[in-house]
Amino acid sequence: MKARVFVTLKNGVLDPQGEAVKHALGTLGFDGVNTVRQGKMIEIDLAHTDVAKAEADVTEMCEKLLANTVIENYSVEIG
Amino acid sequence: MKARVFVTLKNGVLDPQGEAVKHALGTLGFDGVNTVRQGKMIEIDLAHTDVAKAEADVTEMCEKLLANTVIENYSVEIG
Repeated sequence: MKARVFVTLKNGVLDPQGEAVKHALGTLGFDGVNTVRQGKMIEIDLAHTDVAKAEADVTEMCEKLLANTVIENYSVEIG
Repeated sequence: MKARVFVTLKNGVLDPQGEAVKHALGTLGFDGVNTVRQGKMIEIDLAHTDVAKAEADVTEMCEKLLANTVIENYSVEIG
């Protein structure tokens, strides 16, 4: 079973990577880019076949390792 | 208009970050993790309101800057 985790910086947390991408896009001639925020996507292939258990496990993985919940939000997609 | 870009390593390309996460999950006691692959998610807020133009622009951004198409795949979600 596949799970996808999206980890993004919370609103108000500075995102220098995103700012750098925004600046680079402007340099390349792309107009009309208001903001860019960069986050992480983590694809996990699990041996479980139980959706509920997979979701609980992946949420625990986020809390313990994948996201820094002080400055980051996460969301989990199963399947 | 919001666009989300997902950049992932192509199959067969080594992903040391993903391997490190997998190892760390094992250390924390999570069993049944077959593989972990780590990618990037880039959220772009565009001034356009035209979906077709936004999609074309963001695809061009991926080709020119956001993804290294030799080793990475990308997908674009608009809206």
